[in-house]
Amino acid sequence: MNLPPPAWVVIEPLVRAALLEDLGRAGDITTDAIVPAGRLARAVLKAREEGVLAGLDLAKLAFDLIDRDIDVEVLIADGGMVAPGSVIADVEGPARGILTAERTALNFLCHLSGIATATAALVTAVKGTKAKIVCTRKTTPGLRAIEKYAVRAGGGANHRFGLDDAILIKDNHVAIAGSVTEALRRARAAAGHLVKIEVEIDDLEQLAEALAGGADAMLLDNMSPDMLAKAVALAHGRAMTEASGRITVATARAIAAAGVDLISAGWLTHSAPSLDIGLDFEG
Amino acid sequence: MNLPPPAWVVIEPLVRAALLEDLGRAGDITTDAIVPAGRLARAVLKAREEGVLAGLDLAKLAFDLIDRDIDVEVLIADGGMVAPGSVIADVEGPARGILTAERTALNFLCHLSGIATATAALVTAVKGTKAKIVCTRKTTPGLRAIEKYAVRAGGGANHRFGLDDAILIKDNHVAIAGSVTEALRRARAAAGHLVKIEVEIDDLEQLAEALAGGADAMLLDNMSPDMLAKAVALAHGRAMTEASGRITVATARAIAAAGVDLISAGWLTHSAPSLDIGLDFEG
Amino acid sequence: MNLPPPAWVVIEPLVRAALLEDLGRAGDITTDAIVPAGRLARAVLKAREEGVLAGLDLAKLAFDLIDRDIDVEVLIADGGMVAPGSVIADVEGPARGILTAERTALNFLCHLSGIATATAALVTAVKGTKAKIVCTRKTTPGLRAIEKYAVRAGGGANHRFGLDDAILIKDNHVAIAGSVTEALRRARAAAGHLVKIEVEIDDLEQLAEALAGGADAMLLDNMSPDMLAKAVALAHGRAMTEASGRITVATARAIAAAGVDLISAGWLTHSAPSLDIGLDFEG
Amino acid sequence: MNLPPPAWVVIEPLVRAALLEDLGRAGDITTDAIVPAGRLARAVLKAREEGVLAGLDLAKLAFDLIDRDIDVEVLIADGGMVAPGSVIADVEGPARGILTAERTALNFLCHLSGIATATAALVTAVKGTKAKIVCTRKTTPGLRAIEKYAVRAGGGANHRFGLDDAILIKDNHVAIAGSVTEALRRARAAAGHLVKIEVEIDDLEQLAEALAGGADAMLLDNMSPDMLAKAVALAHGRAMTEASGRITVATARAIAAAGVDLISAGWLTHSAPSLDIGLDFEG
Amino acid sequence: MNLPPPAWVVIEPLVRAALLEDLGRAGDITTDAIVPAGRLARAVLKAREEGVLAGLDLAKLAFDLIDRDIDVEVLIADGGMVAPGSVIADVEGPARGILTAERTALNFLCHLSGIATATAALVTAVKGTKAKIVCTRKTTPGLRAIEKYAVRAGGGANHRFGLDDAILIKDNHVAIAGSVTEALRRARAAAGHLVKIEVEIDDLEQLAEALAGGADAMLLDNMSPDMLAKAVALAHGRAMTEASGRITVATARAIAAAGVDLISAGWLTHSAPSLDIGLDFEG
Amino acid sequence: MNLPPPAWVVIEPLVRAALLEDLGRAGDITTDAIVPAGRLARAVLKAREEGVLAGLDLAKLAFDLIDRDIDVEVLIADGGMVAPGSVIADVEGPARGILTAERTALNFLCHLSGIATATAALVTAVKGTKAKIVCTRKTTPGLRAIEKYAVRAGGGANHRFGLDDAILIKDNHVAIAGSVTEALRRARAAAGHLVKIEVEIDDLEQLAEALAGGADAMLLDNMSPDMLAKAVALAHGRAMTEASGRITVATARAIAAAGVDLISAGWLTHSAPSLDIGLDFEG
Repeated sequence: MNLPPPAWVVIEPLVRAALLEDLGRAGDITTDAIVPAGRLARAVLKAREEGVLAGLDLAKLAFDLIDRDIDVEVLIADGGMVAPGSVIADVEGPARGILTAERTALNFLCHLSGIATATAALVTAVKGTKAKIVCTRKTTPGLRAIEKYAVRAGGGANHRFGLDDAILIKDNHVAIAGSVTEALRRARAAAGHLVKIEVEIDDLEQLAEALAGGADAMLLDNMSPDMLAKAVALAHGRAMTEASGRITVATARAIAAAGVDLISAGWLTHSAPSLDIGLDFEG
Repeated sequence: MNLPPPAWVVIEPLVRAALLEDLGRAGDITTDAIVPAGRLARAVLKAREEGVLAGLDLAKLAFDLIDRDIDVEVLIADGGMVAPGSVIADVEGPARGILTAERTALNFLCHLSGIATATAALVTAVKGTKAKIVCTRKTTPGLRAIEKYAVRAGGGANHRFGLDDAILIKDNHVAIAGSVTEALRRARAAAGHLVKIEVEIDDLEQLAEALAGGADAMLLDNMSPDMLAKAVALAHGRAMTEASGRITVATARAIAAAGVDLISAGWLTHSAPSLDIGLDFEG
Repeated sequence: MNLPPPAWVVIEPLVRAALLEDLGRAGDITTDAIVPAGRLARAVLKAREEGVLAGLDLAKLAFDLIDRDIDVEVLIADGGMVAPGSVIADVEGPARGILTAERTALNFLCHLSGIATATAALVTAVKGTKAKIVCTRKTTPGLRAIEKYAVRAGGGANHRFGLDDAILIKDNHVAIAGSVTEALRRARAAAGHLVKIEVEIDDLEQLAEALAGGADAMLLDNMSPDMLAKAVALAHGRAMTEASGRITVATARAIAAAGVDLISAGWLTHSAPSLDIGLDFEG
Repeated sequence: MNLPPPAWVVIEPLVRAALLEDLGRAGDITTDAIVPAGRLARAVLKAREEGVLAGLDLAKLAFDLIDRDIDVEVLIADGGMVAPGSVIADVEGPARGILTAERTALNFLCHLSGIATATAALVTAVKGTKAKIVCTRKTTPGLRAIEKYAVRAGGGANHRFGLDDAILIKDNHVAIAGSVTEALRRARAAAGHLVKIEVEIDDLEQLAEALAGGADAMLLDNMSPDMLAKAVALAHGRAMTEASGRITVATARAIAAAGVDLISAGWLTHSAPSLDIGLDFEG
Repeated sequence: MNLPPPAWVVIEPLVRAALLEDLGRAGDITTDAIVPAGRLARAVLKAREEGVLAGLDLAKLAFDLIDRDIDVEVLIADGGMVAPGSVIADVEGPARGILTAERTALNFLCHLSGIATATAALVTAVKGTKAKIVCTRKTTPGLRAIEKYAVRAGGGANHRFGLDDAILIKDNHVAIAGSVTEALRRARAAAGHLVKIEVEIDDLEQLAEALAGGADAMLLDNMSPDMLAKAVALAHGRAMTEASGRITVATARAIAAAGVDLISAGWLTHSAPSLDIGLDFEG
Repeated sequence: MNLPPPAWVVIEPLVRAALLEDLGRAGDITTDAIVPAGRLARAVLKAREEGVLAGLDLAKLAFDLIDRDIDVEVLIADGGMVAPGSVIADVEGPARGILTAERTALNFLCHLSGIATATAALVTAVKGTKAKIVCTRKTTPGLRAIEKYAVRAGGGANHRFGLDDAILIKDNHVAIAGSVTEALRRARAAAGHLVKIEVEIDDLEQLAEALAGGADAMLLDNMSPDMLAKAVALAHGRAMTEASGRITVATARAIAAAGVDLISAGWLTHSAPSLDIGLDFEG
C-alpha cells in the first residue's frame, strides 16, 4: 500500500515545513561539526515494537528533500505488519543527510504508524462482524489528510474529512432547529444531490424521527449494546448505523455484535501512542 | 499562564491553516443549512476529565478568526488544573460561528492539554527531588513550538527546540568520529560561544571521557537507577545529567532519586492522549 | 445573502493576492502622483446591465485591505437583482484608496456576478419544473469555492466541489473496470458511508446496470429529451437523474420537462460573461 | 510558441494550487477505487471546436506534478490553430494520474485557449489595418500573468500588467486634479524616466490639452469611428491612440479603419468563453 | 512622507516574516524570563548619527504585530532629516513587547534609512543641476519594493522595478542581436505601447545608432564627463541620458554638470551603510 | 566550502522569491524580445575586486530554477579568495535563461560575498590573537540564515541566530530586574539546561556581579582596551568575554590584544558593501 500518485503534491509542503521546523536557522550544527561532508553510511529503519506501518512515503521524502543522494528502499510497505526487529527500509547515502533527516522522517512515520496500529487493533477486535472501524474529525491540526490515510492503512475507513463533505446533524443543531424532523428538513433542502446526511441520535424516538425524515445514517452516541441492537433493528435496510462513544479494544466486539455498520473512535487520531521505530546505523 | 505577546504572530498561521483544513471548499454545510444567520448562543468549554490546560489562546483565536463577534472569556488559564465538569471558558456570540469553530478550537485545546497533563503527572511523580521533566524533539510535525509550550504549561521544561540551538552528540556521531573525545573536540571547535554541548553516554567510561572533554551535559540513556547514581556522582558539579529511555510515571521517582538533573520523555509530545474537553451549549 | 461568517478566513488570502497582483512592486503610481493623500471621495458601485449580484464581500474586503478608512455600505446584497443604473453600494473614504482598490474589487464582483447572472437565467428557464441547476468542476483555477458560491447566489446548487467529496464514475472509469457493474462494485467497496456515487450513463442498458448496482445518481450525458424521459421513468424513486451536455437557456426547459432532478452546465463557471458593474465618483 | 523559460517558476505555484483545490483532503476517490495502481493508458487532448491554443505548458505541468511518469507530447503548440477533432497532444502513462490531473489540466488549457481564440478573432477582424488588439487589467484574480500571455498567444498585445508599470490617467484622476493639464503635470513630475503616460480622453478639447501636456498615448473612450478619425488626425505623430469601449468582432474593423494604433477590449480576459477541449482515452 | 495606503498589504508579510525569523520557535526567552508580563515602559527611537529617515511604517508595524497595546507616535517622518540625538518616535506600552520587537523594528528602519541617507548625499551633491539620482535593480533579495521606496524618501527616483516594466538593452543583448539597430528593432516590435526602451551605450557611434533607432533613453556607461557632455549634446531633445558607473558623492557633481538627465548608482541599495538608530528606554 | 546538504530546502524559497520579485508579471521582456529561444551562450562569473566568496549555491540555484539546462561549474568555492579578474564559475546554456537569472544570482552572490569579505578583513586584523570575530542579530530582514553563513564563509563565527537560542541580558533587562544579580537569577531559573546566558556589562562592578551570578559570557560594551584587559583578567577561566561597539579593521587588533575571546561587529551584516562580481559573456 502506497500513497496514491497525487500524494507528492499533497505531502511535499508538509515534509518541507517539518524539516524547516527542525533545521531552524542554523541547521544540524552537531552533524555539520562532527561528520565529514563526503562520508557515506548505511542504516535501516527498524521496528522496536509490534504494529502496522503508515507514512513511509513521508519518511522517504524527508530524506530525499535533505539530500537527493540518499537512497531509501522500502522493504515493508504501508499497511504491513512489523514485529520488534523488523527491518522496514534500507537507507543509504551521505551520512550527514541521513542524520539530519532522521528525526523528521521518524516523527512522521512513528506518528502515522501509531494511528495505523491502533486502528488495526480495533479492526481485529471486530473481525468477523460487519462493523467497519472509522475515524472522526478529532485529528491533529494540519495533519488531517495523512492521519485519515493512516487509518486506512490500518484497515479502517474514513468518516467526514471536514465540515464540507457531508452533513452531520449534531445535538446542538437539533436543539436550534427545534426537532430532528425540522433539522433534517432544513438539511435536505440545502444539501447537494451527492451529499449524505447523518444524524446524531440519543434515543429510539429520535431514531424513528430521523428514519422518517430520510437520514442516510444514524450516529448512535454512547448507547449500550442492547440499545444499539434495538436501534439497528429499527434502522435495518433504511439507514446505516454508527456507534460512537469511548469505544475501546475491549468493548468494540460487543458493540459490533449489536449489528452496527460502523464504529467510530476519535482516539485513533487524537490519542493513539506513536509506534516505536528507530534508525540504526550499520557497520 | 498565557502565551507571551508575540504568540499571535506565531499561532495565527497555525490556527488559520487548521480552520481551512476543516472548512474545505464548501464550509460548514450542516450549520449553514440549519442554523439561522442571526441566531445567538451561549456555550461553555467544559472539562470531562481531570488534567492540566494548555492552548486556550489557540482555541480563542479559532473562534475569533471565524467570527469576531464571538466572545470568549477564559475562566481557567493555561497551566490551571481541571476536574470533570470544570468550566474552562464562556463562549458567547453567533451560534453559527461557535459551531463552525468548535472542532478546530477543541482539537488544539485537547491535544495541548493532553501534553500538559502528561507532563504534570511526571512532574508530580518526581516532586521533592531536584529532577526537572523535559521533552524531546519527538514532536508532531508542524506543532513543535506549541507542543513545547504545552510541556511548560504542565510544569516541565524544554530540551532543544531543533537541530540548531544546541549540540547533542549521539551514538552515531561518536561512531563516525571514532570516540567521544574526538567528537567533542570537533563539536567544541565548531560551536558558537553560546552553544552548549551534550553527549549521549552508554557507560561510565564514556562518561569519564565526556567529562574530560568538557561536555556541558550528559544524556544517560537507558541506565538503571544504580548506574545513574554512579554517573551522577562522577559528573557532580562538572556537568548536568539527564536520564532518558522509557520513563513512566511509575519509574520516574526512582530515576529522579538517583540524583539526575533532568528526566526526558519523548512520549510527552508524541504519545500523550488528548484531554477530553467539550463544548456544551446552554439554555 | 452574504457569505457565511467563516468566509473571511477563506476569501482574505484570495483578495490579498489579487491586490498584490495589481499593485506590483511600485503600487498605484498614477493615483499616488495625482491624488493628494488627504483627499476624501464618495463613489457608488453601479450596475450597467441587468443581472444578479455575487461577490460583494470580496469587493468590500478589497477596499478594506487597501485602507481601513474606506467605508462600504452595501445596498443590494448578493443574490439581489440589478438593472442598469442600480446603485449597489456606497463607497466613501480616502480617494487614493478607492481608486487603488477599484479594479480588484470590480474584477471579483463582475466575475462572480456574471456567474450568478448566468445561473439565474437557467434557473428562470426551468422555473416550475423540479429541475435544479447545478455547476461542475469546470471552474477557474484558484476560484472554485467562490465560483460555486456565486452559483448559489444565482439560485443554483452545487455539484461536487472536488475529486474527493463524492464518487463520479465516468466513461473512462467504466472502460477500465470493464463494466458499469464492476466499476460500481469497486466504488461501493471503497466508498465511505457518507459518500454518494453517481455514474455517467450513455444508454438505457447502462442505466439498468447502474440502478441494479445501487448508484445514487445518474449522469445522463447528451441525451435527447425523449431519451431523458425514458431514463427518468426507469430511475424513478431509485436514483437521482442529472442531465448534462451543452445545456442552454433555450434548451433547458425541454430538458427539465423530461423530469430530471438536476441539469448541470459547465459554462456557468467557465464561460459566463462578467456582469458590467462600474465605480462612479460623485460630485 | 512556448512560455519562456522562467515560466516554470511562475506557473508552478498556480498549477500546484489548482491541483490541491481539486484533490481536497481525500484525493481522487473515484479513480483510486476503480483504477488499478499499475494500469497504463494512452490518451489525447483533442479540440472539440475551432480556436487558438494557449496554456499547454500549464496542462503539461498538471500531469507532471501528479505523476512524473506521465509523458505529454505536444503536437500543436500555443498560438496554433485547431479545428474540431485536432489532436493537440499525446498523453501516456499511469491511468490513475491521467484521470486525476485531467480536469485541472483542461481547466487551464480551455480557459487560456478561450482567451487566445477571442483575441485571434479580433486580430483577424482588423487584419490589414495598423491596429493592434490589446487587453486590459480586467482579468481574473490570480491569473493576470497567464491571461496576458494567452492574449499574446492569440496574436494580441498587452496593455499595463498592473497599477505600477505605466501611468494611466482616468477621468476620476482628471476630475480630482482639476484638468487634464494639471493631472499630466503631476504625473510627469512623479514619473520615472522609463514610465509612459496615457490619458483617458472624452472629447477633442481634452485631446488637445493632453497633446500639449506631452502624454505618450491617448485612450479614446467610447468614441464613434468619425470622432476617432478626427482624434487620430490630431494626435498623428505625437501620441499613440487607443480606442476602447465595447469593441466587438463586428465593430472592430470600422474602428481600426479610423486609424487608431490600438484597440483594447476588456472582455478578452473577463468574458471570453472557454475553448472546448477534451481528453479522450484510446483503445 | 508616509508609505501610501496600500503599503500595509505589501509590508505586512515582510514584517511578519522578519519577526518570525527573530522569534524562532521559543520566542524572546530573555525577556520572557526577566520582564514581568504586566510591566509597562516608555522608550524613544533616537538617531545616533546624521541622516535621512525611511521605514517608520515598518518599524511601527513590527511593534504593532508583537503587541497591539504598544503605541508608537512618530515625531519625524520618512524623508525627514535627523542629527545625533534626534528623537524620531515615542514608543509606549508593555515592556516585553517593546523589547521583543526592538531589533526587527530597527533592522528595517536602520537599513532603509541608510539607503535614504546615501541617496540624499548624492542628491545634495548634484543640487542645482538637472540630474536626478536613481537606483538600479541591484537590491537586496526580497526587499526591492521597500528599498526603492527608501530611495524616494531620500529624494531620489526609481529606475526599473524589475525585468518586466521597461526594456533595457544591455551590451550582451546588443552582441546577440548583432547591432544596436537590430536589437532596437526587435525590442520595438515586441514592446507594448506603454513600454519605454533604454539602450546601454559605450561610445558615440552606438549613441547615434540608438538615436536613429528611436530609443527613449541612453544608458551612458562609465564615460568621462567630457564624453558625457558630447553624448548629451547629441541626444539633446531626442532621448533621456543616464550616466552610470561607480558614481560617488565626490564625482557626481562633475558628471551632473555634463548635463545628463539621470545618474544611477547601484550602491545606493546594495552597499549603503545602515543608519545608526537606537531604542532608548526612559525613566 | 559549500552550504551543507539541507541548504536546498532552506534556500530554495529565498531564491524563488527573489526571481519572482525580478520577473514581475511579464518576465524579462528585453531578453524575450531580442534573444532567440534556442540560442546558447557561455559566460563566466568574474570578480572585479579582491574579496572572499559566499553564496555560490544561491547563485547556482537562481540559474537552475530559471532553466535546468544552464550548467554552472564552480571554480572557486565559498570561502575562497578572489582578486580582480578571478574567474569564479563557468555558466553555460540557453542565453535567455542566463540573462534572465543574472541579476538575481549576482544580487545574492555580491551581497553575501561582501559580508564574507568584511568578515575576513576583521579576521585578518586579529590574526595571531585568540579573538574570534562574530556577527550579531543586526541582519537584513529575511536573510539572517544566509548572512550568518556568509560570516562563517569569511572565517568568522556566529552569535545568537535569534531571540530564542540563548539568553542575552541587556541593559534594559537589568534596569527592569533592578540588578544584574536579580536579572541573572530570573534567567537561570527559566533557562533550559542547554541554554547559555550572556550579560551586557558596562563596568567592572557589574562584571563582578555577573561572574558571581554564574553568567557564561560577558558582553563588554564600548570599553577601552585597558578596561577590556582588566575585565578579561577578572573573568579569566570563569566566563567568555566579548568586546563590542564600533569595532573597525583599524581598532580590532588592539581590542583583541586585550585578550577577549570574541569581538562582535554588527556592521558585518548590516553595512558591509557588496563585493563587485560580474557576469561576462564569452565569444
